[in-house]
Amino acid sequence: EYMDFFEPLPFLPPIPADNTMTPEKIELGKMLFFEPRISASGVISCATCHNPALGWADRIPRAVGHGGQVGERNTPTVLNSGFLGAQFWDGREPDLEGQALGPIQADIEMNMTLAEAIERLKEFEIYHEHFAAAFPDDADPINQGNVALAIATFERTLNTPNSPLDRFLQGDVQAMTEPQVAGMKLFVDAGCVACHNGPALTDSNYHRFELPGSKDEGRFLVTGDEADMFAFRTPTLRNVAVTYPYFNNGSVPDLEGAVQLMGQQMLGQDFSDEELDSLVAFMHALTGEMPDLVIPALP
Amino acid sequence: EYMDFFEPLPFLPPIPADNTMTPEKIELGKMLFFEPRISASGVISCATCHNPALGWADRIPRAVGHGGQVGERNTPTVLNSGFLGAQFWDGREPDLEGQALGPIQADIEMNMTLAEAIERLKEFEIYHEHFAAAFPDDADPINQGNVALAIATFERTLNTPNSPLDRFLQGDVQAMTEPQVAGMKLFVDAGCVACHNGPALTDSNYHRFELPGSKDEGRFLVTGDEADMFAFRTPTLRNVAVTYPYFNNGSVPDLEGAVQLMGQQMLGQDFSDEELDSLVAFMHALTGEMPDLVIPALP
Ligand code: HEC
Ligand code: HEC
Ligand code: HEC
Ligand code: HEC
Ligand SMILES: [Ca+2]
Ligand SMILES: [Ca+2]
Ligand SMILES: [Ca+2]
Ligand SMILES: [Mg+2]
Repeated sequence: EYMDFFEPLPFLPPIPADNTMTPEKIELGKMLFFEPRISASGVISCATCHNPALGWADRIPRAVGHGGQVGERNTPTVLNSGFLGAQFWDGREPDLEGQALGPIQADIEMNMTLAEAIERLKEFEIYHEHFAAAFPDDADPINQGNVALAIATFERTLNTPNSPLDRFLQGDVQAMTEPQVAGMKLFVDAGCVACHNGPALTDSNYHRFELPGSKDEGRFLVTGDEADMFAFRTPTLRNVAVTYPYFNNGSVPDLEGAVQLMGQQMLGQDFSDEELDSLVAFMHALTGEMPDLVIPALP
Repeated sequence: EYMDFFEPLPFLPPIPADNTMTPEKIELGKMLFFEPRISASGVISCATCHNPALGWADRIPRAVGHGGQVGERNTPTVLNSGFLGAQFWDGREPDLEGQALGPIQADIEMNMTLAEAIERLKEFEIYHEHFAAAFPDDADPINQGNVALAIATFERTLNTPNSPLDRFLQGDVQAMTEPQVAGMKLFVDAGCVACHNGPALTDSNYHRFELPGSKDEGRFLVTGDEADMFAFRTPTLRNVAVTYPYFNNGSVPDLEGAVQLMGQQMLGQDFSDEELDSLVAFMHALTGEMPDLVIPALP
């Protein structure tokens, strides 16, 4: 009956009707994801911060971008991001298409105008071919809308099925260890599952969280609604063991600390050492199979 | 008879007797090559500048490193670097083992002390395992000497056999186009092959080169010998079509310009358009098969 609270990760997230998934779009999106020429310095790509060697994130507290500037927030993984109901810690973009053009322009990330990014791409014959193949109905396919569509399509392939939890839910009772099973039960009984549910273990909703030392107003910055002050979108817990450090400013280095703070802040509860161990063990059961990746050869 | 001037690229470069090649060392070296935690910022690895998506270089004129600082020189590819008789544009290190620790410490590259780099690696249990497997005879294997040995071993796997030239030399007369064959002959007849010879198409020797606008004193900075003023080590021409821009400061954007300047400066000769086309076509015949790469999962 505990298993009813969880869903195995599907191989693909929902695909929007206005951005169908094709091999050509995936391939183009992959190139763009690894493309540093769409940054002002020519050296920063999406993959710089969402590094495939580091769980598609960066494993530092707050992102380092253009000119070595340090941002305000921790880089979330892009793994399984197609399963999220809202993008960014504050949910300010509804979907991956809306998200993709933000970091190119953000002055502390890639610091580029979209017009110049498009000009740079147009210099390469190979991009003309790839955009034409991905968007065969467009007369002038190299444009910012199509950059967003292609990157989002690629991101929807970055899923991590077959974690121990998934295999357990699919009937392989050996897939999780005893402490992991105990952790799964406590995760339900303690109430974590109220917010961390669904295939990506997030409700994609906003919850007030007082992170010691943080002044980030979170969702309030988007809505201006006092009720949203210090509220953040619940993040996915998929692969959480490989996406340290934790929370919106990356200030908590390990899972023990993150789980304890969740218990205290969200549930008013202090876990015993044993409880904490089992919850942390369960977090490790959420690490899935990393996507196969052939690094694209860029022009 | 023209073919006698060329050598197909072997699958492996010479392996030094004091750094045998083992799968464990290759795997560890790969991890270290992609490891940003051995940089001060935590975000710059060897692969940042020697980017596998960009011919294992960066495709910008001069490297961008720590804090966005721009260096003085163009990033050479690490592909086939095991075949070079000397490392760096000025040949200041004899081999890959000697080279590897330089960029970690260079303040405009990774800006890290080796002691701190070693401390950071020691924090990860997985590195203890990998160093022990790679260096089974060492009591305390996580040390700077072994970092250099492992990185160099990995680099010796980054070779690009089976270029059109290689296949042509091995008897496949269709492997090169007519202009490429004409370019190969001119490359011999004009005298390029005097300096660009051997499996990597370099003599690993130093030649004076007056690059318009450059004040870089090259080999002189290493030897202090006036005869070495403005002399640079001949670079490999393997994969030169994918390692633009050209020359020690990356000031020449395309192969046409690079080959013309070589003719003028090194051979006192101005090539006709047709000659230039065939030499450039031949340069494209030097692009080999990129190494298969599975991005390592770092701890
Ligand atoms: C300089 C580092 C950096 C670069 C470059 C970067 N990102 Fe991000 N990314 C971040 C940070 C930090 C956040 C969180 C920002 C926030 O929530 O306000 C983020 C958030 C995201 C999210 C939302 C994930 C979630 O769980 O909400 C996606 C998707 C994403 N980035 C994709 C991309 C793409 C695509 C690119 C390139 C076009 C890119 N990123 C470039 C650092 C970076
Ligand atoms: C009321 C909603 C809610 C409940 C209940 C809740 N969480 Fe969370 N969880 C969140 C939100 C929101 C965040 C993001 C906080 C931030 O960084 O601003 C989060 C973050 C986390 C993180 C860090 C993820 C990351 O990538 O940084 C972990 C781990 C976590 N939760 C585990 C748990 C566990 C275990 C429980 C139960 C003990 C739990 N959560 C209960 C909403 C909740
Ligand atoms: C910030 C950019 C940057 C980083 C980081 C970097 N390199 Fe380099 N690399 C360069 C540049 C620039 C040169 C040429 C410097 C010179 O000749 O003086 C170079 C030269 C080399 C060479 C010599 C190749 C030749 O043809 O002479 C090798 C091998 C090499 N690097 C390997 C590495 C390794 C291994 C690391 C990580 C430990 C690394 N590099 C980190 C930019 C970088
Ligand atoms: C006398 C020796 C010598 C001769 C002859 C010579 N080269 Fe070079 N070549 C060099 C040296 C040295 C460099 C590096 C110059 C620099 O960047 O400082 C170089 C660089 C190059 C480059 C740029 C490589 C890169 O990665 O930046 C190309 C292309 C090239 N040579 C092709 C040719 C061709 C084609 C010919 C004949 C027309 C030729 N070379 C003749 C020594 C020579
Ligand atoms: Ca994180
Ligand atoms: Ca040596
Ligand atoms: Ca170059
Ligand atoms: Mg939208």
